[in-house]
Amino acid sequence: MSQLNDVLSYLDAHRADARARLFDWLKIESISTDPAYKNDCIKAAEWLKAELASLGIVADVAPTGGHPVVLARTDGRAKKHALFYGHYDVQPVDPLNLWESGPFDPQLITLEDGRKVIRARGAADDKGQVMTFIEACRAWKEVTGALPIGITFMIEGEEEDGSKHLPAFVVANRERLKADIALVCDTSMWDQGTPQITTGLRGMVYEELTVKAANRDLHSGLYGGGAQNPIRVLNKILADLHDAEGRVTLKDFYVGVPETPKQVLDQWASLGLTSDSFLKPIGLSEPAGEKGRMLIEMVQSRPTCDVNGIIGGYTGVGAKTVIAAEASAKVSFRLVGDQDPAKIRDAFHAHVHARLPKDCTVEFISHKGSPAITLPFDMPDLVAAKSALHDEWGVDAVTLGSGGSIPIVGDFKKSLGF
Amino acid sequence: MSQLNDVLSYLDAHRADARARLFDWLKIESISTDPAYKNDCIKAAEWLKAELASLGIVADVAPTGGHPVVLARTDGRAKKHALFYGHYDVQPVDPLNLWESGPFDPQLITLEDGRKVIRARGAADDKGQVMTFIEACRAWKEVTGALPIGITFMIEGEEEDGSKHLPAFVVANRERLKADIALVCDTSMWDQGTPQITTGLRGMVYEELTVKAANRDLHSGLYGGGAQNPIRVLNKILADLHDAEGRVTLKDFYVGVPETPKQVLDQWASLGLTSDSFLKPIGLSEPAGEKGRMLIEMVQSRPTCDVNGIIGGYTGVGAKTVIAAEASAKVSFRLVGDQDPAKIRDAFHAHVHARLPKDCTVEFISHKGSPAITLPFDMPDLVAAKSALHDEWGVDAVTLGSGGSIPIVGDFKKSLGF
Repeated sequence: MSQLNDVLSYLDAHRADARARLFDWLKIESISTDPAYKNDCIKAAEWLKAELASLGIVADVAPTGGHPVVLARTDGRAKKHALFYGHYDVQPVDPLNLWESGPFDPQLITLEDGRKVIRARGAADDKGQVMTFIEACRAWKEVTGALPIGITFMIEGEEEDGSKHLPAFVVANRERLKADIALVCDTSMWDQGTPQITTGLRGMVYEELTVKAANRDLHSGLYGGGAQNPIRVLNKILADLHDAEGRVTLKDFYVGVPETPKQVLDQWASLGLTSDSFLKPIGLSEPAGEKGRMLIEMVQSRPTCDVNGIIGGYTGVGAKTVIAAEASAKVSFRLVGDQDPAKIRDAFHAHVHARLPKDCTVEFISHKGSPAITLPFDMPDLVAAKSALHDEWGVDAVTLGSGGSIPIVGDFKKSLGF
Repeated sequence: MSQLNDVLSYLDAHRADARARLFDWLKIESISTDPAYKNDCIKAAEWLKAELASLGIVADVAPTGGHPVVLARTDGRAKKHALFYGHYDVQPVDPLNLWESGPFDPQLITLEDGRKVIRARGAADDKGQVMTFIEACRAWKEVTGALPIGITFMIEGEEEDGSKHLPAFVVANRERLKADIALVCDTSMWDQGTPQITTGLRGMVYEELTVKAANRDLHSGLYGGGAQNPIRVLNKILADLHDAEGRVTLKDFYVGVPETPKQVLDQWASLGLTSDSFLKPIGLSEPAGEKGRMLIEMVQSRPTCDVNGIIGGYTGVGAKTVIAAEASAKVSFRLVGDQDPAKIRDAFHAHVHARLPKDCTVEFISHKGSPAITLPFDMPDLVAAKSALHDEWGVDAVTLGSGGSIPIVGDFKKSLGF
């Protein structure tokens, strides 16, 4: 452990230098979605390549169909190898007038509540996280002459634009990316004093359906009461997706949904994620999920179903007595554990067909289908990371699933065989 | 009766002249919705004024906020007075390339099935019907020297444009319009050999509702399962409007809904309005209304509920994992008998509020609320009209409600005290 203490001491001693390097990187306007900043993105990638070179690590600025990926593979003292993922691109900065200082003019400031923060576009997403890791690597090399394990750095430039070219890149560079563990460093802490490890991502099935009845729009004065109304059919289909307990009614929907271990539930309970803290800011007060579950379970460890969009008939101003020929909805399911996206999709289709009157037809568009990803709570690397974080912070790290998806994690799993 | 026979004989003898007059009127391009035809509308009104003058009836071309109303009041032999309503305006004629002859170049043609018809814009809606009545009046005057009863002619020019200025006109001319009975001559026959009297019009309550939950759109990855989804709430509200029997579930919805007399139901049953004849042309095959009712009842004598439009969340191409802040729908109820629009509206609002979670609010826009209009089946004038039609056609006239509304009928009832 004394070696680790030396590394930590080095980091403390050189903090100002590390911050200066981060500030340099934050000054580069690497907005990926706007083509006007294409050269800035390349500049941010080249800056990172040079930074890695200063650690003795040779990186490629590897082309993709869009912005390049900074890719470097280096050995370490142990045989173990980690794939480290981050991104150098940042979100657009408008509206500019709401910035108290320039988005690319990084500032170390003290907030009213005493917290010290770095203010700049990308400081928290994701240049800050990436540099934390790289500075740790620098310290290891400076203090011990080598990295403790082998590391592949893969820092992309299109995360804020949907990582469009990354899945193909992962497949094409499978050998260089092979690793024992992948670290995705694009998440956050629980709070200022509590570290967090994201241990799960919900999967998704996203279906669009269009219910069709008559061969044209009808006048409800002439046909109302006699002709099938596809909006009514759709309403029934969608209303039946949940029971009175807030559970999803699809057949076998909860097959593969794990129960969270009691000690983890206890930890979550202690976090105090309440309606007041989580729902009040968005104008709500009551958790809307399954009865008998904690709010924190509802949003991250339980599967869900949401109607994300619906449209049919006349939606303009005023009244029109039309019976529409068709009506559509977009429905998504967030999956956890071992829920099978293909089976969930089939069960949804069966649910729809079972409620479809003879005179109606339905068409589906399947937008997404990806399984959830969950780390075993007793996975050795996870246990070790938690232990290390406890040593550093003096409190237990929160291990939590994320309600959302980080698509690249699925690609890593699929293409790299984790 | 010999007087009536003389009148009918006169009409038969002068049919060609009568048709020539109608053709003259049909040539006038009185399209009310298009301002380019403003002068043609005035021309059609003036033509009618001159036509009435040729019967010795003095008419005004009375101004309104829009196209004028042709208004004439004349006495008859009996004290009884009838208000006769029709319209001289016609619908637009596009697409022109689908006309086999010019829309304002009237033709007497023989269809493939042997039927003789007049083809021109307005021939069946409503210049033909109006001239049938006026030619009958002419025959009465020529043969007997007087009209059998007093008649007020009110022929408007904005029916195809929503009769916007007519309600105010009716109120302003209440005294000149006073009558014992009003005849709305803007309907059709059951078929080529069967006359029809429309004896009822369904009323309407048309409500728009917007369900609101969070104070902004949410990401379903972060909030899905925890936050209330207004589309889901709206689906439940709307799905609950009908029970499994197809009946509307609003409290006391069927209060005031009359049962149709058995002999009328028998007549309707004999009309052969089937799924094949009524639904097949629109691509449907199964009546969608209340179980245990004939299709003809569903569409004209039973009250209904239809969702006419719905919108919420993401409705563009592809997938977006949004939980919308709000969702809206337009819902209409067709009313019959003595159903009270105000009570139906209140019951609908109560239905919505009963299904509204604590975190949601709802806003309503009340678009329409008008009661149904139904003639008593034993009304003496109705019985007399049926008898006369039977004498002329040799078959019973069909007495039928209309599924739609003719708003001016409500105005007559309200403003003229029928």
